[in-house]
Amino acid sequence: MDQTSTFPGRIRLGMVGGGEGAFIGAVHRHAARFDDRYQLVAGALSSSAQASQRSGSALGLERIYDDYLQMAQTEGAREDGIEAVCIVTPNHMHAPVARAFLEAGIHVICDKPVTTNSGDARMLKALAERHGLLFAVTHNYSAYPMVRHAQQMVREGALGEIRVVNVEYAQDWLAAPLEQSGQKQAAWRTDPAKAGGGAIGDIGSHAWQLADTIAGLPLESLAAQLSSFVPGRVIDDDVQVLLRYRGGARGMLWASQVAPGCANELRIRVFGSAGGLEWAQQQPNELFWTPLGEPTRILTRGSAAMNAAGARTSRVPAGHPEGYIDAFGALYREIADHLLARRHGGDPGAASFPTIDDGLRGVLFIETVQASSRAGGLWTPLPS
Amino acid sequence: MDQTSTFPGRIRLGMVGGGEGAFIGAVHRHAARFDDRYQLVAGALSSSAQASQRSGSALGLERIYDDYLQMAQTEGAREDGIEAVCIVTPNHMHAPVARAFLEAGIHVICDKPVTTNSGDARMLKALAERHGLLFAVTHNYSAYPMVRHAQQMVREGALGEIRVVNVEYAQDWLAAPLEQSGQKQAAWRTDPAKAGGGAIGDIGSHAWQLADTIAGLPLESLAAQLSSFVPGRVIDDDVQVLLRYRGGARGMLWASQVAPGCANELRIRVFGSAGGLEWAQQQPNELFWTPLGEPTRILTRGSAAMNAAGARTSRVPAGHPEGYIDAFGALYREIADHLLARRHGGDPGAASFPTIDDGLRGVLFIETVQASSRAGGLWTPLPS
Amino acid sequence: MDQTSTFPGRIRLGMVGGGEGAFIGAVHRHAARFDDRYQLVAGALSSSAQASQRSGSALGLERIYDDYLQMAQTEGAREDGIEAVCIVTPNHMHAPVARAFLEAGIHVICDKPVTTNSGDARMLKALAERHGLLFAVTHNYSAYPMVRHAQQMVREGALGEIRVVNVEYAQDWLAAPLEQSGQKQAAWRTDPAKAGGGAIGDIGSHAWQLADTIAGLPLESLAAQLSSFVPGRVIDDDVQVLLRYRGGARGMLWASQVAPGCANELRIRVFGSAGGLEWAQQQPNELFWTPLGEPTRILTRGSAAMNAAGARTSRVPAGHPEGYIDAFGALYREIADHLLARRHGGDPGAASFPTIDDGLRGVLFIETVQASSRAGGLWTPLPS
Amino acid sequence: MDQTSTFPGRIRLGMVGGGEGAFIGAVHRHAARFDDRYQLVAGALSSSAQASQRSGSALGLERIYDDYLQMAQTEGAREDGIEAVCIVTPNHMHAPVARAFLEAGIHVICDKPVTTNSGDARMLKALAERHGLLFAVTHNYSAYPMVRHAQQMVREGALGEIRVVNVEYAQDWLAAPLEQSGQKQAAWRTDPAKAGGGAIGDIGSHAWQLADTIAGLPLESLAAQLSSFVPGRVIDDDVQVLLRYRGGARGMLWASQVAPGCANELRIRVFGSAGGLEWAQQQPNELFWTPLGEPTRILTRGSAAMNAAGARTSRVPAGHPEGYIDAFGALYREIADHLLARRHGGDPGAASFPTIDDGLRGVLFIETVQASSRAGGLWTPLPS
Repeated sequence: MDQTSTFPGRIRLGMVGGGEGAFIGAVHRHAARFDDRYQLVAGALSSSAQASQRSGSALGLERIYDDYLQMAQTEGAREDGIEAVCIVTPNHMHAPVARAFLEAGIHVICDKPVTTNSGDARMLKALAERHGLLFAVTHNYSAYPMVRHAQQMVREGALGEIRVVNVEYAQDWLAAPLEQSGQKQAAWRTDPAKAGGGAIGDIGSHAWQLADTIAGLPLESLAAQLSSFVPGRVIDDDVQVLLRYRGGARGMLWASQVAPGCANELRIRVFGSAGGLEWAQQQPNELFWTPLGEPTRILTRGSAAMNAAGARTSRVPAGHPEGYIDAFGALYREIADHLLARRHGGDPGAASFPTIDDGLRGVLFIETVQASSRAGGLWTPLPS
Repeated sequence: MDQTSTFPGRIRLGMVGGGEGAFIGAVHRHAARFDDRYQLVAGALSSSAQASQRSGSALGLERIYDDYLQMAQTEGAREDGIEAVCIVTPNHMHAPVARAFLEAGIHVICDKPVTTNSGDARMLKALAERHGLLFAVTHNYSAYPMVRHAQQMVREGALGEIRVVNVEYAQDWLAAPLEQSGQKQAAWRTDPAKAGGGAIGDIGSHAWQLADTIAGLPLESLAAQLSSFVPGRVIDDDVQVLLRYRGGARGMLWASQVAPGCANELRIRVFGSAGGLEWAQQQPNELFWTPLGEPTRILTRGSAAMNAAGARTSRVPAGHPEGYIDAFGALYREIADHLLARRHGGDPGAASFPTIDDGLRGVLFIETVQASSRAGGLWTPLPS
Repeated sequence: MDQTSTFPGRIRLGMVGGGEGAFIGAVHRHAARFDDRYQLVAGALSSSAQASQRSGSALGLERIYDDYLQMAQTEGAREDGIEAVCIVTPNHMHAPVARAFLEAGIHVICDKPVTTNSGDARMLKALAERHGLLFAVTHNYSAYPMVRHAQQMVREGALGEIRVVNVEYAQDWLAAPLEQSGQKQAAWRTDPAKAGGGAIGDIGSHAWQLADTIAGLPLESLAAQLSSFVPGRVIDDDVQVLLRYRGGARGMLWASQVAPGCANELRIRVFGSAGGLEWAQQQPNELFWTPLGEPTRILTRGSAAMNAAGARTSRVPAGHPEGYIDAFGALYREIADHLLARRHGGDPGAASFPTIDDGLRGVLFIETVQASSRAGGLWTPLPS
Repeated sequence: MDQTSTFPGRIRLGMVGGGEGAFIGAVHRHAARFDDRYQLVAGALSSSAQASQRSGSALGLERIYDDYLQMAQTEGAREDGIEAVCIVTPNHMHAPVARAFLEAGIHVICDKPVTTNSGDARMLKALAERHGLLFAVTHNYSAYPMVRHAQQMVREGALGEIRVVNVEYAQDWLAAPLEQSGQKQAAWRTDPAKAGGGAIGDIGSHAWQLADTIAGLPLESLAAQLSSFVPGRVIDDDVQVLLRYRGGARGMLWASQVAPGCANELRIRVFGSAGGLEWAQQQPNELFWTPLGEPTRILTRGSAAMNAAGARTSRVPAGHPEGYIDAFGALYREIADHLLARRHGGDPGAASFPTIDDGLRGVLFIETVQASSRAGGLWTPLPS
């Protein structure tokens, strides 16, 4: 919360999706507003023109569009058009929407999984590169300060050689057939055509990305079993995976939406020859670090023990908990700083946040898990 | 994060204090921005005109003032002047600043303790009433959803008759003589002339207010010992109090700034004839409830178990932690809703947040603790 | 700690293994002594006659033998010979020792894994049945009161239909090549000839048995990867398994001896259509139960919420922690009660503790894991 | 669980109290048996001769007495009489029973509080000294390994100068008027004539002794409020105390039997100029240590980080929890080692466990709390 530096300005932001009845759109708006780096000026908030108008008015938006194509073209043509669009539609719409905005010369900030198939993800990656545009993917959990701290510790060798990675993301909100009640979130997230995957896409992708962020190891192959436990459900609500990393490390990944007692229990443990780390999203301000043979240390966000990577996304003092919105906001702030550097013609440097490269790898992970499971849990290599 | 209702508009807000080197000012700005209910348009951010200009520019403020008096008079006279001022100066300046804005017809949102003596607090209370203005006091911890949930439970009798209240707020940032290093926060907070009280004023007042919020019992008398443990310190850095409530309940309050290992360990336990509650600010999304003779329940923010009071200040789903800024923001949102109702001529109803009444009672509590301690820990009645 | 009933007498007990430098032998002696149901009167405590004599004298044993064969024959022939033998040798000696005592008509209490191959386990099972003798296997963790409580809850349907089982047992004591330092425990436990298996045999078998106890589901097939992470080690020190249960439940099992920060982190979570359970050996007096859609309950040992199965192995009041020895002792007490019933010619009923049947199934589990891993992690059915 | 040393022999032990319906007697028997250092041979287990006979038979005692006087005289006269007596009667009987055995030349192991008034305690202290006998007091919590570890840390200066001590012991078993139901434990513990004090005597004395053990500071004065919350109760069920130690440290003590959700929540925190410690009986295998300005360390029983004092009373490896009986047993083992040294004419050295000196100071503490409370919470000096 340092305010000694000069205010860097605000990014003109648009939003596609996130209208009435949506959940994640409001989170993105909170996150974008958190550090005052964005001004939300335009939106096509719903696939229905009427709902889009209603939702946009309720938010006090300046420019409300009936559909995303119109919005991309109009905003791309305006002198003062949006600089970036935030895409928070159901998954199957990410690709066409992102494509439209990239082609209009507008940076993209997209929810995950970035697409429902790797072909689309490759297309978007190529498109972003061709147009020289940023394509950020909001794997928000990776921006928690203690996750960044852990990432730097591993990179610096604090754990020695990584041996075991154990990551899980357990929820219980789909333990009953909620989608049959008409609940909007449950409906599209359990519809294969709209979601692309169930637990594997919705939360398994987060678990994969968290392990990828902290351990930073290339995945070689995996064996997976997807399950659909709730009667009548046609998409997976539980996924269990064994992992083999290049270099010999081994791992396990579990994601479930049918685990009563687990709200959003995203938890990772990484063990190496010199120490171990444990972090859980539900108590995100603490990172447990055990140097081999020594007592476990509780590293706390905001304390003197934080390294540079951890401190960078932290705001309030130790003991004053930061949470989900804070971390989501930290991601948005980093994206804003990147975009402001580009706006001023500077070199933004390597992105400290996930981009379409991570998004593509995430979709390849999902597809490999699905392929392994379809083949009865066969060990399946990750495509390069 | 409900966005179905029409956007209610934004309060025009000014700020006094919170410039370079300050901590709590930035927190208030985050909190005010959180739910998009305020527009920060004016400020006198420092007692130095130059620093005020620098800080205001860095924040991109429209109207920057050299001092608060000028600001109060000018804003009070403008058609589009600020509707409310947020006061985040050192404690001894709260009273003169608040007075100036009240006299200019501007609502006040003031940090705690509201004044350094009860005479000033009574004066402000009278002034606010005379002018028909809101005077809110930012006891932010009281807006955590699980605190509100606990408050409603107690009011509804879930604990039976309250017997024991145990509240504490422990920190360690002043365990060494930080004020001798020139650290700005430590300097004014350990200066009796500027702070009015040490641990008792800075954090003891929060602990008192949390107990007051949840247990809701009138305090009759207390016995206290204030200590200044760090060599060279002239203000208390530890306070220990026994409490007697009207009706027979008894309590203990401990606040310390010299407790290594405690960052902001604000914790309360309330026990009654029918059950017990426990809540801690460092894990604020959980409330432990034990109906007498039954297993302890972990009530989680965002879950189906929340009552109306708890749900009202909660935003994201269970398992996605809310934190310090979220709760501070919830307080600001409630104040905004109150002010918007007044703006539109409606009846805002009883304030759901702390006001000058609470602020005055808090100062009386502090003064009684100080009097008891000066008298060697004598039992001392609270003034009515 | 009920002492109203008449003292039922003590079982005359012998011990093989557990001499100088051993660990688990002393644990068994504590456990046997805990509830005063045994009298340790004879032993062959070491494979070396001299060490056996030294160790026996140090313990004040009445009858000390140079080797187990001599002991089995002599004790079997005495009128007042031991009624049961406790076998706490390295794993590869379990089978020959147990055979000798069974053939001498003496009941067997054997550490796990019961043998290093299923052929031996089948042989022992047949032998025990032929002679009408008890063959108990000391899967001690299954006797923790909250494990028994959980087992009964699942049997009574409190979780509905079981969907997911997640069990793990992580240690860190073999994260460095301790066996190369001459440490006796590490030496035999990492020697395939003496141990039969590494992490899978030593602790993976406990994890399997805990899941078997609580979930009670027949295992159909598994895919496993064993690893030997520590340079120079020839036995597995980490094992990761995917599980398929008959009826559709799925599971994951992880056991590791190279996980810094984990001392004896045995933890299980079981999720069903109606609720979830979580228990961890390091905090064994608490069981977390979440009925679907309701707050999590902390069930505590000794409280009014305990069911009959849980209460039966519990001794001290809630809040006074029971631990490892208490649970081990509870197992020994149940075995004693069983043997006393047999002594008096009564029907001891079905064993409430693990027997050779469980021991055999455990060895089959280990062999299947090893076979799957050797085949590259292939899905492999459990032999019936 | 080291068995390399020669078995040192067993102490011949008698017991007074602890018959049918008693709780703590069975705990003492478990504790005495734990490390095989005692042989329980005689007892007068009840104030009723018939009940004493029944209880003694149920335990298989060799010599059962109708009353304690007869037992003291007979055992004192026998060549093979008991060497020590364990006194587990209601509190008001401690003094006459202890006196009888001391006068018969028999060492005493007595439950706490040692007497119901300090006159009796002084008498017993003088008597033990005159006869050259050991008088041990079973403040069992002081023998938990992590308590001993903490004690040594403080003595070695790891916390610097002690500033604040915060200790509490909260229960909920008397939150309802259990004594009116005829429950035997509740009946005598709430009868002033038999207990001497309520919460202050039963558990406040444990809290005091734990603080005394770890912080080791002489208490100068205190202010206390005793409450009897449950209708109809004539003894205190809640006690709250402010403490002043010689040298300037300050403290708070809370003991309650009416705190729903607290089973046996004995917890202590000690803060000094160089660091802080926290320990709780319900998770006794962990000690939280924060060196000022550094991350908190979780010190675990059985780990390499333990100091000599902590290691001495620890038995099983880290991660295998020790509990209440283990610690009680550790106290008994230390007493046995002391008595064995005396038996063999050696110098047992200073007692590592609480004795009549601690017992007397404990009673003086209780009396001072009661006097302060009677005087309305007046600050009252401890008698020297």
